[in-house]
Amino acid sequence: MRAGPSQEEVRRHNLGTLLRYVHVHGATSRAELTSRLGLNRSTIGALTADLTTAGLVTEAAPRETGRAGRPSLVVRPESSKVYAYALSIEVDRLRAARVGLGGRILDRRETDRPRGMQVLDAVQPLAEFVHEMRADVPGDARYVGTGVAVAGMVRRADGMVRLAPTIGWVEEPVGAALRAELGDVGKLTLGNHADVSALVEHSRGAAAGCDNVIYLYGDVGVGAGIIADGRRVAGHGGYGGEVGHMVVNPYGRECSCGSRGCWETEIGEYALLKHAGRAELSGREAVLGVVEAAMRGDSQAQFAVRQVGEWIGFGVGNLVNIFNPEAVIFGGTLRDVYLVAAAQIRSRLTAIALPACREHIRLRTPELGGDAALIGAAELAFEHLLEDPLLN
Amino acid sequence: MRAGPSQEEVRRHNLGTLLRYVHVHGATSRAELTSRLGLNRSTIGALTADLTTAGLVTEAAPRETGRAGRPSLVVRPESSKVYAYALSIEVDRLRAARVGLGGRILDRRETDRPRGMQVLDAVQPLAEFVHEMRADVPGDARYVGTGVAVAGMVRRADGMVRLAPTIGWVEEPVGAALRAELGDVGKLTLGNHADVSALVEHSRGAAAGCDNVIYLYGDVGVGAGIIADGRRVAGHGGYGGEVGHMVVNPYGRECSCGSRGCWETEIGEYALLKHAGRAELSGREAVLGVVEAAMRGDSQAQFAVRQVGEWIGFGVGNLVNIFNPEAVIFGGTLRDVYLVAAAQIRSRLTAIALPACREHIRLRTPELGGDAALIGAAELAFEHLLEDPLLN
Repeated sequence: MRAGPSQEEVRRHNLGTLLRYVHVHGATSRAELTSRLGLNRSTIGALTADLTTAGLVTEAAPRETGRAGRPSLVVRPESSKVYAYALSIEVDRLRAARVGLGGRILDRRETDRPRGMQVLDAVQPLAEFVHEMRADVPGDARYVGTGVAVAGMVRRADGMVRLAPTIGWVEEPVGAALRAELGDVGKLTLGNHADVSALVEHSRGAAAGCDNVIYLYGDVGVGAGIIADGRRVAGHGGYGGEVGHMVVNPYGRECSCGSRGCWETEIGEYALLKHAGRAELSGREAVLGVVEAAMRGDSQAQFAVRQVGEWIGFGVGNLVNIFNPEAVIFGGTLRDVYLVAAAQIRSRLTAIALPACREHIRLRTPELGGDAALIGAAELAFEHLLEDPLLN
Repeated sequence: MRAGPSQEEVRRHNLGTLLRYVHVHGATSRAELTSRLGLNRSTIGALTADLTTAGLVTEAAPRETGRAGRPSLVVRPESSKVYAYALSIEVDRLRAARVGLGGRILDRRETDRPRGMQVLDAVQPLAEFVHEMRADVPGDARYVGTGVAVAGMVRRADGMVRLAPTIGWVEEPVGAALRAELGDVGKLTLGNHADVSALVEHSRGAAAGCDNVIYLYGDVGVGAGIIADGRRVAGHGGYGGEVGHMVVNPYGRECSCGSRGCWETEIGEYALLKHAGRAELSGREAVLGVVEAAMRGDSQAQFAVRQVGEWIGFGVGNLVNIFNPEAVIFGGTLRDVYLVAAAQIRSRLTAIALPACREHIRLRTPELGGDAALIGAAELAFEHLLEDPLLN
């Protein structure tokens, strides 16, 4: 329990609130900020002036509105001048981007990640991407930090990757390795890939306006970023959301985590390919191959999609009973499976989820696709700035 | 996104914070309030004076401290003067209490609830209990409202019980029925039994100081109140926490909800009694009979307890992967089963839950037992007062 804030704390809070608003919503008129933030016009003017001086926003007259009277100035985040680096370590690829305030991707790089690649081999190309992108940064631009999304369980305090079974890493000091390779990088924050993607789809994507959201991400494994009452369900150590290791089939297959019948053994890439008679293949292209074959009428591919769809609906039904969400978003290759198996998924979900828990639910595909992980990684860096815009 | 508060809002927030602190923690010295709330001594003095004038707290010199210097005044909630009625509708019983500010039970009543009892027959004895207790209320006492805990899914807005399969009610207007029977009752708020119990064990019971908590309650059915980062996981309509209907056994028995293999079909009262060869029995006493027989060495009872223990550990393991909690509390008859099956539960939990998700977990029994539901129901009524102590 904390008592209320002082006047100076209120001002700094308001600066962060205003900056966060334009960071998430983009260009916004002063009039709209006045109404959205519940502050009067002069306060909005003073806050905007402070943020302009700090180089975080710009103000300009809007384009012709066609309405009479003096138009309200429009406040924009300084997307081209204030930026973070975003890195993403995924099962099949390594990605890097330079992301401007407002979540705009200014530059990007990508390379394949062969399965089995170790930490030191993965951080080298990422660091190289950053060095390449740095060469093109304008001289007056301001760097705020680097965020990293990892397809695994991450200890935020020090960037230790505790467990990333699909990548094959256990207790790997990825944060320290990146810091060593990147050199003077300032604030470096790691987060879970599904968690950061969820926050971005929640703030500016398919679940904008929804306070209770389950974002599922699937490829080889399955993870989730879960938003309850507008906030991430992180858990005690930050490891919440490991829905891929919810056991759904006590008589199922062994999982890479050592348990048996985990949800990802029934809905991950391997299950789909095996049902489709393509167990020797792997990767996103192979999954898309099955989905396309199912759409073309290939009966074994359709069988595979139905089987996996049943189990997707099964697990989502469980999560709906636990969380009573408004929106469930299917990301990664689960998006593609969802598009052809929506009927099975809905049917099984309806059988398992209690009517009150599912009554307003919307099933969705991501709006930002793979960019959510990059924008979300950058959010880890921007968060420090948004907490207190004048601190740095 | 909301901008920061005005000075008057800050004052009202501080009044609520101080009152909430003594409500939860009991008698607290001004010196400790100053340090806990991060406010200076004169502010604490002014807030305490306002709350004293409003009749919500008292101040007195502490008992002899044995230390030199003037002792800090001790602030106490007015437990005997400010009160709520708490009602609890459970599978086997109906309970009512008068609860003082600070969560002190001042008076209580209880009667059996025969299974199958309908809403109108249940609200009559509850209303009678309230009328009886009202006769003993001191003339200067202040009533703040009535809270009701129901072993079912409740729509808080109007007190509609959407689904209470173990009680046998579907879409029953329990709030309206109680209001009709109680007459002029003022604020009447209904909540789910496990949710309100969880909040009390979280604020002043077995999970005090833990921010990520799963409180399980079992009898015929199984429900949970889940706390993530200090706040209840309510979900979009308030129906979250229905973990009893997480399907754990796709090849299991039909559940009262219409699905198959729900967790409560494997760990609820009926499963235990059936495994113990006592399927013709029911109720808390019958469950305790099996637990006691297992402790005495009865092999069939031990088998039953082991079977149910395995499935308890299974489901808890799933929830640990999803929530990464610090504490799991076993309430209702699950408490008794836990006490004899802790080894099975821990072993299965360890097999299913990922190491990072379970590394700091503590398994606990409730500190407040059945009183948690009554104190929690009263909290529903006190919440209005704590939000803004001077409003009424």
